[in-house]
Amino acid sequence: MGLLSAESYLQSLNDGREIYYKGKRIPDVVADPDLGIAARHASIDFELAERPDYRDLAVAEEDGQTYSAYYRIPRSGMDLANRSKLIEAGTREGGTLVLLIKEIGSDALFALMRVLRRHDEQPGLEKLERLYRACRDGDLTLAVAQTDVKGDRSKRPSQQADPDLYVHVVSQSDEGIVVRGAKVHISCAPYVDRLIVLPSRSMTEADAPWSVSFTVPVATKGLKLYASDFLGEAGDEFTHPVSSLHRMVEALVVFDDVFVPWEDVFFCDRPDIASDAALAFVEYHRFTAVSYKLPYLDALVGSAFAVAEANGISRASHVREKLTWLVGYAESVRGLIELAALRAREEHGIAFPDVLTTNLAKWHFARDFHAAIAAVQDLAGGLLVTGPSGADWASDDVRPVLEKYLVGAWPAHRRLAVLNLISDLTSRSYGGYQAVLAVHAEGSIEAEKLAMLRAYDPTAALNYALDLAGAQNAG
Amino acid sequence: MGLLSAESYLQSLNDGREIYYKGKRIPDVVADPDLGIAARHASIDFELAERPDYRDLAVAEEDGQTYSAYYRIPRSGMDLANRSKLIEAGTREGGTLVLLIKEIGSDALFALMRVLRRHDEQPGLEKLERLYRACRDGDLTLAVAQTDVKGDRSKRPSQQADPDLYVHVVSQSDEGIVVRGAKVHISCAPYVDRLIVLPSRSMTEADAPWSVSFTVPVATKGLKLYASDFLGEAGDEFTHPVSSLHRMVEALVVFDDVFVPWEDVFFCDRPDIASDAALAFVEYHRFTAVSYKLPYLDALVGSAFAVAEANGISRASHVREKLTWLVGYAESVRGLIELAALRAREEHGIAFPDVLTTNLAKWHFARDFHAAIAAVQDLAGGLLVTGPSGADWASDDVRPVLEKYLVGAWPAHRRLAVLNLISDLTSRSYGGYQAVLAVHAEGSIEAEKLAMLRAYDPTAALNYALDLAGAQNAG
Amino acid sequence: MGLLSAESYLQSLNDGREIYYKGKRIPDVVADPDLGIAARHASIDFELAERPDYRDLAVAEEDGQTYSAYYRIPRSGMDLANRSKLIEAGTREGGTLVLLIKEIGSDALFALMRVLRRHDEQPGLEKLERLYRACRDGDLTLAVAQTDVKGDRSKRPSQQADPDLYVHVVSQSDEGIVVRGAKVHISCAPYVDRLIVLPSRSMTEADAPWSVSFTVPVATKGLKLYASDFLGEAGDEFTHPVSSLHRMVEALVVFDDVFVPWEDVFFCDRPDIASDAALAFVEYHRFTAVSYKLPYLDALVGSAFAVAEANGISRASHVREKLTWLVGYAESVRGLIELAALRAREEHGIAFPDVLTTNLAKWHFARDFHAAIAAVQDLAGGLLVTGPSGADWASDDVRPVLEKYLVGAWPAHRRLAVLNLISDLTSRSYGGYQAVLAVHAEGSIEAEKLAMLRAYDPTAALNYALDLAGAQNAG
Amino acid sequence: MGLLSAESYLQSLNDGREIYYKGKRIPDVVADPDLGIAARHASIDFELAERPDYRDLAVAEEDGQTYSAYYRIPRSGMDLANRSKLIEAGTREGGTLVLLIKEIGSDALFALMRVLRRHDEQPGLEKLERLYRACRDGDLTLAVAQTDVKGDRSKRPSQQADPDLYVHVVSQSDEGIVVRGAKVHISCAPYVDRLIVLPSRSMTEADAPWSVSFTVPVATKGLKLYASDFLGEAGDEFTHPVSSLHRMVEALVVFDDVFVPWEDVFFCDRPDIASDAALAFVEYHRFTAVSYKLPYLDALVGSAFAVAEANGISRASHVREKLTWLVGYAESVRGLIELAALRAREEHGIAFPDVLTTNLAKWHFARDFHAAIAAVQDLAGGLLVTGPSGADWASDDVRPVLEKYLVGAWPAHRRLAVLNLISDLTSRSYGGYQAVLAVHAEGSIEAEKLAMLRAYDPTAALNYALDLAGAQNAG
Repeated sequence: MGLLSAESYLQSLNDGREIYYKGKRIPDVVADPDLGIAARHASIDFELAERPDYRDLAVAEEDGQTYSAYYRIPRSGMDLANRSKLIEAGTREGGTLVLLIKEIGSDALFALMRVLRRHDEQPGLEKLERLYRACRDGDLTLAVAQTDVKGDRSKRPSQQADPDLYVHVVSQSDEGIVVRGAKVHISCAPYVDRLIVLPSRSMTEADAPWSVSFTVPVATKGLKLYASDFLGEAGDEFTHPVSSLHRMVEALVVFDDVFVPWEDVFFCDRPDIASDAALAFVEYHRFTAVSYKLPYLDALVGSAFAVAEANGISRASHVREKLTWLVGYAESVRGLIELAALRAREEHGIAFPDVLTTNLAKWHFARDFHAAIAAVQDLAGGLLVTGPSGADWASDDVRPVLEKYLVGAWPAHRRLAVLNLISDLTSRSYGGYQAVLAVHAEGSIEAEKLAMLRAYDPTAALNYALDLAGAQNAG
Repeated sequence: MGLLSAESYLQSLNDGREIYYKGKRIPDVVADPDLGIAARHASIDFELAERPDYRDLAVAEEDGQTYSAYYRIPRSGMDLANRSKLIEAGTREGGTLVLLIKEIGSDALFALMRVLRRHDEQPGLEKLERLYRACRDGDLTLAVAQTDVKGDRSKRPSQQADPDLYVHVVSQSDEGIVVRGAKVHISCAPYVDRLIVLPSRSMTEADAPWSVSFTVPVATKGLKLYASDFLGEAGDEFTHPVSSLHRMVEALVVFDDVFVPWEDVFFCDRPDIASDAALAFVEYHRFTAVSYKLPYLDALVGSAFAVAEANGISRASHVREKLTWLVGYAESVRGLIELAALRAREEHGIAFPDVLTTNLAKWHFARDFHAAIAAVQDLAGGLLVTGPSGADWASDDVRPVLEKYLVGAWPAHRRLAVLNLISDLTSRSYGGYQAVLAVHAEGSIEAEKLAMLRAYDPTAALNYALDLAGAQNAG
Repeated sequence: MGLLSAESYLQSLNDGREIYYKGKRIPDVVADPDLGIAARHASIDFELAERPDYRDLAVAEEDGQTYSAYYRIPRSGMDLANRSKLIEAGTREGGTLVLLIKEIGSDALFALMRVLRRHDEQPGLEKLERLYRACRDGDLTLAVAQTDVKGDRSKRPSQQADPDLYVHVVSQSDEGIVVRGAKVHISCAPYVDRLIVLPSRSMTEADAPWSVSFTVPVATKGLKLYASDFLGEAGDEFTHPVSSLHRMVEALVVFDDVFVPWEDVFFCDRPDIASDAALAFVEYHRFTAVSYKLPYLDALVGSAFAVAEANGISRASHVREKLTWLVGYAESVRGLIELAALRAREEHGIAFPDVLTTNLAKWHFARDFHAAIAAVQDLAGGLLVTGPSGADWASDDVRPVLEKYLVGAWPAHRRLAVLNLISDLTSRSYGGYQAVLAVHAEGSIEAEKLAMLRAYDPTAALNYALDLAGAQNAG
Repeated sequence: MGLLSAESYLQSLNDGREIYYKGKRIPDVVADPDLGIAARHASIDFELAERPDYRDLAVAEEDGQTYSAYYRIPRSGMDLANRSKLIEAGTREGGTLVLLIKEIGSDALFALMRVLRRHDEQPGLEKLERLYRACRDGDLTLAVAQTDVKGDRSKRPSQQADPDLYVHVVSQSDEGIVVRGAKVHISCAPYVDRLIVLPSRSMTEADAPWSVSFTVPVATKGLKLYASDFLGEAGDEFTHPVSSLHRMVEALVVFDDVFVPWEDVFFCDRPDIASDAALAFVEYHRFTAVSYKLPYLDALVGSAFAVAEANGISRASHVREKLTWLVGYAESVRGLIELAALRAREEHGIAFPDVLTTNLAKWHFARDFHAAIAAVQDLAGGLLVTGPSGADWASDDVRPVLEKYLVGAWPAHRRLAVLNLISDLTSRSYGGYQAVLAVHAEGSIEAEKLAMLRAYDPTAALNYALDLAGAQNAG
């Protein structure tokens, strides 16, 4: 066992899994021109572990065994801070796009460890630890299938017209359970080994059949993945310097009466655990989320500084104002997520980041994201959408014209390189992808707000105000 | 003469013009798969004039002659208001994208009429009126080539290392002038009859050779157009309901020692007129700009209401908050541009919209645009970027799965139609295109601010404050 | 009859009315040092009518009779625009503070005229018209008592523990009704002739006893006014150039079993009319509100320009940015309220301002008010709160020190005059008074939002979006 | 020596110092009704050290000696975090108002220690350490006189028409120097033992005579303090629960040819040290500033929660939205200042808070302050400015009326107590005082921005962007 190579990872994906893409069954994920980009992007995870400069961050060692540091169970704020740095490093190497084939899975493992201990669920815990060891020792990759398709959002699972709109248990036997339903927006599902399935919301007693958590290999009978094609065919590298090389794929994951043996079921018919698991997972997952936003933010800040130079406007007062704002925005997010780690809390020996601080970081990130995009586009100028194509640049007839006329304070080729980076990051579909992620991934802004209000204890502030008002004991 | 048909317009474009696209010379604009979309989109202009429901708005009548109402010289606030409605109507029929083959050209004609009269430039005025009659009577189409490529933005034209970075006169003869340089972001240039060339900034005496304005047919020797491919190949209609049918193309327009006969030169070596012309043009052009943003804003507001219903969240308080904000945003822009027309001013018998109010409208539009996008994306959800492709929807295997699982409070097909509209408007490259236009087209936000401060006379407010302070005559 | 003088108005207030202030019964409002400031401020209304420069605006003429133009029934957008200008002019002369002794009363009269006609309530209408003629012909002054004290805000009138928390009818007889309860925040009540009492919210059948509207002279048995002392004693004129001369007083108005003869009751036990009256009143009243904010906004803008000069910072880029923002803010509010008049609607021959546009104007005003304050304070500097007192300035020992050391680009006396104006407008209690008015007067921001969403018809935008989406007839 | 009592401190202030207030010389600061409030407020500093619950925080111990913990030289992030907590605690006991009689002085001491060591200025350092020991061992109080009156802000000290507009050395002798000029906004100066005088800006060689730093007892010949009266007479405790008990006083400090012996001069004619000292001081002082804002923010948050309950609106969605925003605002500021301590840096063995993080914290605090005020005023309602006076509440006639009619979900007396707290914190002059402090104290928002941009090293982000763009080595 031990650490896998990128190559072994990619080869292992050709296992008969049932993937549909653009209306067709895909026989081999890695061989598909679009999906292959995503799988190779994800494989950077394994390359990182082999690079000497990242080894300390990316590889854990215990009892002489080495394993991927994503699977290191956090015991302290320092562990969480290192985990954050690892996620950031992977994303940085991934060209601003998170790798996410172990990040989210380990978020789920740690959350379930805490919750199953909290509920003293020994059998579930043993199964979970078996999965944990398998992942750690086999360097496995995981997706987490949490978000149900939900149907009418004003109704609970048990109230939906179609019970399948939340994944649920349709039958139980001595061997295991049969589940049906669909999960949506499941990142990386087409190119990981296994899914961990979690409930997507709090549950009531009436929702017991929907209160289930288990794991399943992607290549399982009845499990069908419908991959999204939002990013389409890769653009040329000139105008798409990031998205031509990096992408992530989400899938609609359908459980068409999938059988899951009991040994892979962590809990079943347990609304109480379901609610706790949903919450505990996002406690880790939003921390992961902010950690992986940092390279994208750095790319925005860095390209803003670059384009201000390239355009010859870096001395202008309004430009400095915008650069300052961008720095303030990005560094507030970075600062708050670092603080969330430093303010770590602990449950049953497992550390987790401070919930209020994590949500503060994500709230800042999400609510000002579109303003940051606007600021960078403002500095860059209209060439973002009116500039030349890669074919223009490659043409001997056209390129000299562009070199003559598209100079700024930097020569045209360098200026266009920066402009194309900004165009790819903010104006093309990759930019739109990041924008929608900013609003929705790992919980919407409204979800962050709810979490902030829930995580904040107003007692001290309230008492201070009542003391000042002289209204404390006023009955 | 008289009104042309869309067909005649499209046929007339095959005139030997020198267009480059994706690195290659394009023999026939309309026949090109990408550029043809844009030309056909523009041709909606001619269809509008033939539709009974738009005839009153789109067709002017004078002395028994009918002509396109874009060419009606505004004499009053009411004329301006009707012009705004016409531009809005064309854009609405253009699926939120402005047609712009007469709007911007007539902006330039009206601006030059005022400025040449202001300077009592009879010869220039006569040439201009000849052009005006040709456009009006021949139902011609026009692009305006204003923005120079600019090089180092901290330098004036005469200070640039390369004099060609602003279009300038390289020689004069009895027959005419020879011009060199390049203009960038020139909308619709590949598929209009003529260009009007305007200076892009205020000029000093030293900038006299750059202080030139003229007209030239697109099919002119030495005139080369390099079209941008930002929107690339058309997506399928399912996921790109707008951008598969509608697009505009910008070009880099290079004047490679183009000869212009004197009869087409409005002024030359006149920094004083150049400055006035640059300003007067944007007085009309920003009014045009805000007028053509309204259908896009309505599409945002309307799709926000639709998706709130489709997702079953329209009763949620935060949803109503976002809808209200969107209404307030869109209707403030609409109200202010309507007011800019009603507050019309006049010069030499030609009306123009109030400058402060026009810039207020554009400022509101531009500064909150990205927040509006964020609000609509928030209401829509992550399916914007993780949803199925057109091929998925067309597949008999996949579609039933989508129909079952992607229902909301509306059935899947209607819900996905609305989601795909929002994705196309905000998250795909068409959304990015609109976002960059919002920040840069017709003047950046910084340019709006400058214009606002310049158009505002602080005397009354200042005196009122000094009166209140008792500091008026205090020496 | 005819127009009154300021003096007659002030004398008429000494009529035995029951006013309490700072815990004591006040025998004569005008003689009270604090309340007298407010009454004299209000009397500017009568002076305006006598000034030749305001006569056209302030005095109406009909059938040879002259009367205060506040009582001119609006018949067109132009009438509404003139009404707005009159309210603005009074406020301007009132040193940024509205006079409000006829503005709000005529708002209520016009609203009731429309609503009683809408419901074809002839008897109520006749009584109302009698009141209207009395006001117009006798140049009377009016306060409107609308906002009930409300108790627990989550409950309707009929659900409150104490029925008196909304004003209601406790008994009826052949002669009239007896009412009990209290209205709060009633501006100018201590120094007007009469109150018009309106319901403060929509009513259900169960709320019939609270669905009453009538008029009553302030000097009526059982009517008790408790005046607020928020602005306290007048400060010196040096540091309080505005608030030492101008103030408005609000009162808690208690109806302690007040008898109202039938001839003064417009409606009673009519929840349907109550709801309509509450809404129609704010349609006028928010238009009044925005009209009277304009001088305050001009004072902010003007003092911002002045202090930028006085401090010698007017060339700094961030200063120009803030000035531009302030101009954009103030002129958006002004533009939108002008447009609300121009988009006038009409009911039974009486014009009213467009509801959506009026609320847009008020929304812009209210939501950015505190940011405007911050901008002006930013330009002014810390001397706003650390500057010298009037006594310092009056001292022969201290003043020379101040003159030497507190110079800027302007001499100290002029710079301090401007700084003290800004301090009074934004940092002292008068500033806090204006800030709370900005948030709450004539409806909170939340109320504006509700009104905006209600006044906006999404049908057109929704249909446009569904057309674009191809989802219009899709079932 | 050792820790002083509040009483000794107050007695020591009657030392002949030359204080002017409201145009008159004040013989005894503590005896003055207004200034006495401020001195007694400051004396809470000494009480804190005597309270067992604060002893660990407020008292340092070294070699068996105890001294005020404000004078503990920070050696680590933990020391800085404790210093922040001490400042916060003093402010909390001071009813949201900082005490500041040792905070700012020790900021200056630590800054000068670092800068004099950096420049290896042994003589200056020895004098400084003598002052430090005197302060520490004698429990002295200090004000820092930094901000010059500045005159025309576009000119440097040496360019001003009047050289006295920045404090400067007018003559030097063997005994010492004579200084002239004035410093403005000097907090607490009338009631501290000594001043530390620092340059207020960077200096050039030409500004050498203005490049001076020294200490001087307040009771020194030629030193004249002109105290500001912004907060005026104390209001009643009912409506002014905070400001009736707590205030700070700023003074204009005039150096009328004040002699300073060499032993109290830290440096003179040293523009290089002047610049460094000005910067190093704000590195500590902004950290102090944010630390002392926290109780005010807590009071806002706490009173917002309280008034939402008192008004019975705490379940409303827009109320929860505002509460969440307030929590997010206050806790972001708290989090970032905590992080600034944890990210401590060090110079010559003395720790200082991370500069970027400190300025981020202050930037967040300052730019959203007015929005926070608006949110709290919004939740509270119009009674903030229309409510009853203390005399009303004390009146047996009026109070029962108020008790009946001003109930909410809480009884009137408790609800009014909370409303009056909010009114005092946000709407009365104390609120205006805090608002102007938020914008200007310890550096304006523009100063924070400058510091942020200066403290941020863009290299890493820039290189990352250039790598992504492929433009790194592209020449």
